[in-house]
Amino acid sequence: MEFTMKPISEIHSPFTDKSQTPIQPTRSQAAGQVEVYPEFAEGLQDVEGFSHVILLYAFHQSEGYSLRVKPFLDDQLRGLFATRHPCRPNPIGLSIVRLLARRDNLLEIEGVDVLDGTPLLDIKPYVPDFDARENVRVGWYETRSKE
Amino acid sequence: MEFTMKPISEIHSPFTDKSQTPIQPTRSQAAGQVEVYPEFAEGLQDVEGFSHVILLYAFHQSEGYSLRVKPFLDDQLRGLFATRHPCRPNPIGLSIVRLLARRDNLLEIEGVDVLDGTPLLDIKPYVPDFDARENVRVGWYETRSKE
Repeated sequence: MEFTMKPISEIHSPFTDKSQTPIQPTRSQAAGQVEVYPEFAEGLQDVEGFSHVILLYAFHQSEGYSLRVKPFLDDQLRGLFATRHPCRPNPIGLSIVRLLARRDNLLEIEGVDVLDGTPLLDIKPYVPDFDARENVRVGWYETRSKE
Repeated sequence: MEFTMKPISEIHSPFTDKSQTPIQPTRSQAAGQVEVYPEFAEGLQDVEGFSHVILLYAFHQSEGYSLRVKPFLDDQLRGLFATRHPCRPNPIGLSIVRLLARRDNLLEIEGVDVLDGTPLLDIKPYVPDFDARENVRVGWYETRSKE
């Protein structure tokens, strides 16, 4: 079984080099744009009511993967699925960004942590009632999260 | 440009009928299992340290899409990207579930809101530092979220 994904847009960001790209949106205040391809523009209606959106995108510059990786924030090998490493069997990235404004098919966003030109696969509204959890344990990341 | 995704597992849930499936994990206490295909098992190491994981999966029973849809929780047409509707240009679903236990390549999860047999594309650890936001506006969903 296979699923074929085609981008709905590219994400524009100030980052053209992996080594300069923030590791997560919460560590970035960079502004960016999403210019959704015109054939999908109608689907953006009402999105401006949301302060944050979830971007799902392809890690298009990742090549292959290892099942044990050393995360950017750690110095030990960890199971890939216990990390957010970009090289994955299905290299889908997930970032929650602030939505500053919509003008027709253009979204102005803030907190961008992806490379310029990253192929966007989906946009979903961020709804804490669906997406936020409390009383969370974060495993190996516990000692790293305050750095 | 196209990206081909192959499942790493199937999600097992009690739901075999779309009409009986909860609309979101926060509205479900259903238990489920993810039995990751053996070739990916090594990537699960350390995941048991996390209380919640993000599942990315294919909405495999969705067919086609409309750019304006009536969400399950609303009675008006909304732009597709302002909803979590399963019929999307790239039908990728996102659910945050509680991870109860791992036994080798088997994850016991709670808060399942997907059909039995849903093809799983990726597992990421849920880390509030990356994934939770405060001071959020939720657009049309505001008046629906307490129902």
